[in-house]
Amino acid sequence: MLVSQAKPYMKDFEKLKKDALLMFDSALDAADPYKAVHRHVSREGHFLSVGIQKYDLRETEKIIVVGAGKASARMGMAVEEILGDLISDGLINVKYGHGAPLRKITVHEGGHPVPDLHGLEGTRKLFSLVKGASGKDIVICLISGGGSSLMPMPVPGIDLQSKQEITHILLGCGATIHEVNAVRKHISGIKGGRLAQAAAPAQVISLILSDVIGDDLDVIASGPTVPDTTEFITALNILAGYDLTDRVPRNVLNYLQAGADGDNPETPKPDNPIFENVVNVVIANNTGAINAAAAKAGSLGYRSLVLSSFIQGEAREVARVMAAIAREISASGRPIPRPACVIAGGETTVTLKGKGIGGRNQELALAALLDLGNIDNTLILAAGTDGTDGPTDAAGAMASINTLFVAEKQGLLARDYLTNNDSYNFFKATGDLIITGPTGTNVMDIILVIVG
Amino acid sequence: MLVSQAKPYMKDFEKLKKDALLMFDSALDAADPYKAVHRHVSREGHFLSVGIQKYDLRETEKIIVVGAGKASARMGMAVEEILGDLISDGLINVKYGHGAPLRKITVHEGGHPVPDLHGLEGTRKLFSLVKGASGKDIVICLISGGGSSLMPMPVPGIDLQSKQEITHILLGCGATIHEVNAVRKHISGIKGGRLAQAAAPAQVISLILSDVIGDDLDVIASGPTVPDTTEFITALNILAGYDLTDRVPRNVLNYLQAGADGDNPETPKPDNPIFENVVNVVIANNTGAINAAAAKAGSLGYRSLVLSSFIQGEAREVARVMAAIAREISASGRPIPRPACVIAGGETTVTLKGKGIGGRNQELALAALLDLGNIDNTLILAAGTDGTDGPTDAAGAMASINTLFVAEKQGLLARDYLTNNDSYNFFKATGDLIITGPTGTNVMDIILVIVG
Repeated sequence: MLVSQAKPYMKDFEKLKKDALLMFDSALDAADPYKAVHRHVSREGHFLSVGIQKYDLRETEKIIVVGAGKASARMGMAVEEILGDLISDGLINVKYGHGAPLRKITVHEGGHPVPDLHGLEGTRKLFSLVKGASGKDIVICLISGGGSSLMPMPVPGIDLQSKQEITHILLGCGATIHEVNAVRKHISGIKGGRLAQAAAPAQVISLILSDVIGDDLDVIASGPTVPDTTEFITALNILAGYDLTDRVPRNVLNYLQAGADGDNPETPKPDNPIFENVVNVVIANNTGAINAAAAKAGSLGYRSLVLSSFIQGEAREVARVMAAIAREISASGRPIPRPACVIAGGETTVTLKGKGIGGRNQELALAALLDLGNIDNTLILAAGTDGTDGPTDAAGAMASINTLFVAEKQGLLARDYLTNNDSYNFFKATGDLIITGPTGTNVMDIILVIVG
Repeated sequence: MLVSQAKPYMKDFEKLKKDALLMFDSALDAADPYKAVHRHVSREGHFLSVGIQKYDLRETEKIIVVGAGKASARMGMAVEEILGDLISDGLINVKYGHGAPLRKITVHEGGHPVPDLHGLEGTRKLFSLVKGASGKDIVICLISGGGSSLMPMPVPGIDLQSKQEITHILLGCGATIHEVNAVRKHISGIKGGRLAQAAAPAQVISLILSDVIGDDLDVIASGPTVPDTTEFITALNILAGYDLTDRVPRNVLNYLQAGADGDNPETPKPDNPIFENVVNVVIANNTGAINAAAAKAGSLGYRSLVLSSFIQGEAREVARVMAAIAREISASGRPIPRPACVIAGGETTVTLKGKGIGGRNQELALAALLDLGNIDNTLILAAGTDGTDGPTDAAGAMASINTLFVAEKQGLLARDYLTNNDSYNFFKATGDLIITGPTGTNVMDIILVIVG
């Protein structure tokens, strides 16, 4: 091998690492479901404030809290703190083991990512709570990632299996998430705005924690309180477009065709007057987490630049662009002069070829390391805000020239670990894993490119 | 299929496209070898100025011009204009058919990318011109991309085939360009600073057009006028590290081993006094091209941001990051507010899977299109400064929502074309190819992300 590219351990590296973790912590703090509810919802005397909206609690009869998703229990805790005994009733569906001790809101557990009968039972219960609401009631919906699987309620005559099957078939054909949702919403009794429709004429406040690129409300939990722009005929056209008309379960096709003939109820459309009483508020998202990291970077003395919260793509290739930015900062002080922190967010993917263990964030950090070369005082952090990266106990990892130095001392070849998708064992050995434990939230991933 | 995402043809798109082409033209102009020489070299009375260096022509006996590379003929034209009859002699090696009419400098053609005996013959001739130089002479070297293949001169006892073979073996093992070069320089009579060594005690002015990431002088044409930091033992260690000691041609191994024993001459090292008379000047590179594009963007009313000139990676994945940046600009006005132009450069790669035709730049533009969705007034341009992108007559392509609209009208599915690596036929149909013809230069590729 060529002589080592890595230089000896730098003292500054500890500071860089500490700063990076402080920035990531700030991002996590901004994404915390409990804190996010408190930031957006407050009670002042007789008024309930949600963003710029105000609700007069003296004119309110019942407050019903429903919801589904991985973060919904912690959102529920905050809502109970704010409204306490004013909450009349409530039920949220959470993933098995993801509950929290709530007083007024029933915590119901169900299957995720594969919906099951327990989830279905919980959904029916929360739907009937909402269904009974009057014009003097407020329905608060707590929606977060995983809410689609955790709020299953296919229309009568279609079972969970048929719904799962059609989702798999569509995804297997390369259908987009919008196409999949257009079909799913039309065989669901609760999605595509139907939950809001059930709640009418009550006031609906939907507090949403976004785990999707661009915060597409239509996509988060399949938009139970969001107007739908697709129709039965759209769903049928999508199936026909992928030549699936003969492959999908018969009961699904029949339901959709009857719907197109006007025999089944359409999803509520944007001009439906029920939405005048519906407020959808994104209380936490990737952008918020990125902004918090940027603010922290500033307070630590770094110039910060938000690159994008829309990052997608193969982790190891996205990594190369991040390393390229670090190299440019180091070479020319562009796009911003050092000490610099470029911040990005989104969710990458990994095409598994090796047999190691890791996750998209750890793989991104490892691939970036290979391109960073021997740039001094540079660190790339990639980590998931849910605290889990792939099937590992790490949220992500940090890569720097010091990582390379420590690895070389142990005889570890970064390229071999990358080839084997074994980023976890590489960073475990170099001591650069980020371990947070489950954070109870998910606003996708954070990438920090720091050149000190 | 879901209803069209694309909106009707926008008038503004023509302006966006025109602006993008003006910016790319500015980049090409900055990379023009002929103009680049004129920007860096001038004659004022008795003085020859090269950057901040001045040479007194009254004290100069001979001026010898040598060089190799795809851009060297156009560089030679400028040098002849500046020095005219003061040039005593000269020879440059160019690719077959890439000559230019020169008066004083002999234009010799040779094989590229595979070196051949004609190239070897030319290299021997230029080497002997340089070898005869005295302390009162100036040797001007014109180095550009392709200079490595166009300046072959293995040491006695090693033929071109053996040198080619070891390069292939090393690259096949995943060796880095630095590792490959460490071996190649030690079996070359001209690379790794040996051309400068041959010219000593003459003054050496090396005018370099960079086609590599980071302008690593050591890598461009294998650094014929640049000190080498590797040794015979480095080369042997690299071969051993890849378990190649038994696989490389016997004559190569013998030569390297004798070198390590002190029986063959080492390449000149950075502390070698000959380099006191050597000036290496990068006269054009990707950064210069990017800067010119940024300046043009500014004059057209766009805010510009230089992201990186170090871009590498799989074209279709780099594209996703570029699209993510466009979406962020469109959503939040970050990293810079619109009208915005983010500029990047470097060289991506394509892993071919389909049977279509295209190039890395056209593929990047096509992949970006898929992620751009329906963002208004946004265009991504990717093009090669050499005017050639893959085995096509295009330099690159431009992608926008209008491209999508035109494609949909023709029933073309962008995703299918991408899957088939058929970006050329896609953009040919939509009218978004960039055709410049061969530009006679190469400073890698330019990527423009424009949000008007």
